[in-house]
Amino acid sequence: MTAPAPALAPVLLIKSGGAAALAEWRASFHEFAPELGLDVRAWDDPEVDPARVQFVLVWQPEAGRLAQFPNLKAIISAAAGVDHILADPHLPELPIVRMVTPETQQRMAEFTLMSSLMLLKDMPRIIAQQARAEWREFATPRTARETRVGVLGLGALGLAAARMHAAVGFETAGWARSPRSEKGLTCFAGADALPDFLARTDILICLLPETTDTRHLIDAALLRQLPRGAAVINVGRGSHVCLPDLLAALDSGHLSGAVLDVFDEEPLPAEAAVWRHPRVLVTPHAAATPSRRERARQAAVAIAAMLGGLPPPHLYDRTKGY
Amino acid sequence: MTAPAPALAPVLLIKSGGAAALAEWRASFHEFAPELGLDVRAWDDPEVDPARVQFVLVWQPEAGRLAQFPNLKAIISAAAGVDHILADPHLPELPIVRMVTPETQQRMAEFTLMSSLMLLKDMPRIIAQQARAEWREFATPRTARETRVGVLGLGALGLAAARMHAAVGFETAGWARSPRSEKGLTCFAGADALPDFLARTDILICLLPETTDTRHLIDAALLRQLPRGAAVINVGRGSHVCLPDLLAALDSGHLSGAVLDVFDEEPLPAEAAVWRHPRVLVTPHAAATPSRRERARQAAVAIAAMLGGLPPPHLYDRTKGY
Repeated sequence: MTAPAPALAPVLLIKSGGAAALAEWRASFHEFAPELGLDVRAWDDPEVDPARVQFVLVWQPEAGRLAQFPNLKAIISAAAGVDHILADPHLPELPIVRMVTPETQQRMAEFTLMSSLMLLKDMPRIIAQQARAEWREFATPRTARETRVGVLGLGALGLAAARMHAAVGFETAGWARSPRSEKGLTCFAGADALPDFLARTDILICLLPETTDTRHLIDAALLRQLPRGAAVINVGRGSHVCLPDLLAALDSGHLSGAVLDVFDEEPLPAEAAVWRHPRVLVTPHAAATPSRRERARQAAVAIAAMLGGLPPPHLYDRTKGY
Repeated sequence: MTAPAPALAPVLLIKSGGAAALAEWRASFHEFAPELGLDVRAWDDPEVDPARVQFVLVWQPEAGRLAQFPNLKAIISAAAGVDHILADPHLPELPIVRMVTPETQQRMAEFTLMSSLMLLKDMPRIIAQQARAEWREFATPRTARETRVGVLGLGALGLAAARMHAAVGFETAGWARSPRSEKGLTCFAGADALPDFLARTDILICLLPETTDTRHLIDAALLRQLPRGAAVINVGRGSHVCLPDLLAALDSGHLSGAVLDVFDEEPLPAEAAVWRHPRVLVTPHAAATPSRRERARQAAVAIAAMLGGLPPPHLYDRTKGY
């Protein structure tokens, strides 16, 4: 049990990681910002007076809930994107702070590189063999040097992923809406260049920004343009992929594998067929989650700035869309 | 059925990949060395006259078998090491050709990097969750930049692995018997430096040469010197690891995970407990196997040289031990 907070201590409500995570959030905020005297509470703590809530740190807040705090000063996203907040039709007109940690780019690059290497080495097959205690040696046909990776989306995360792939020898290209120039990276730009980009891509990594109108961009028509035997890694948003089309392309043998980290519905329901597909690795939105400690550090910086009357870093700009 | 070979065509016997692989070996030798007119046969083909066998391409030949070919000119290893050949007490005094392909270093570096990233991201947990169709999000505590990789053995493969780890941000060090100097790599040398090397190593990669007297070097006493929560990747030889000690260190929580690619007994028997350990990824000697096509290319170069009276490249030197 923690001691009661001083009467006027600002309350920070947390909706990220559930009840099990609260102690770690509290310890981290105390570590990084003891002087703020924050009263860190769980999202559904019935003892919290809504009028005392000044900050929230949230992932997928329920629609309408944010409008119930009359003295809320800012909404801090618990993850890299803010679309899960913008989806609320009753969202109050308050500052939204993006969760940008120095770790995010490194983590995303590491996760996508791991995924590409796992597909290159046919780890889905090896994992299935281990589950059956079956030793069956096989050689994979290619090294990274003969494998063409294509990163769809060249924002900060896409660039970090592309650079790390190039560093270990993958033939790396990227696609973005508008032209980019990046040393060591073949850049394709705009809808007209998409077919050429896809035709040369053995492993497609989706890191599209969340703001573009890209729902189900990765559908049967797009997948057909990848060479036979290609693989797909989705670490963007679940909505970027038309899952039935992807599964059909795997079943027909046109695609050789997939790593899927994000889904339309999360948690992914236990009955979803994709869990059991032998060519798919399902990961639980794990690609670039910074540690709680690191996110608490960034959130504490934002809260301290606002309590001091300053604009916090990484403020979401509604007109720019990021 | 293939047509009978010309009477005097040199026979190349193959013991690698079993009967299923023979067609691919044949096609590759025909592709790279049609002028040699090699009669490529399976190791246990009863129709082959032993007197016609001039070359063998082998993995783990049965003891005594190589001595039964009176006109054998050379023994070509089907894999990077030659210990599986030297183990034969009746080994004839013939040239042994090591399988060194330009791919091997790249493949080994890729596999070890994939393994380190899988341990860093706790993929054993994610794979187990997928098997149960269980979505449970979690954040891993560190990025590569906060993770210290230690490569045990700094031969060509160890150096390639270390360089690739450093390229993606791991804090990378290496240990070898004798001092090495390598830019961007902290090098420890000799038995006296081993404790310091182990104390700073979060992920230990075993790539020891096969020639050193290192049986069960990775035992309880060595594992105790790694920091709590460390992980082990063995891509050297199965004999380098004392498997019961490793499993005990995992069960006690001292080690957090392992990727094991090589074992004392291969194929690893289905009843081996290590298959089912939740913190161990078992891979079927898959780390650096070059494609058959690539190995056929290298073997054809060696055979052409010897038939032309020249020394083949990558000849094993019994006095140097490599």
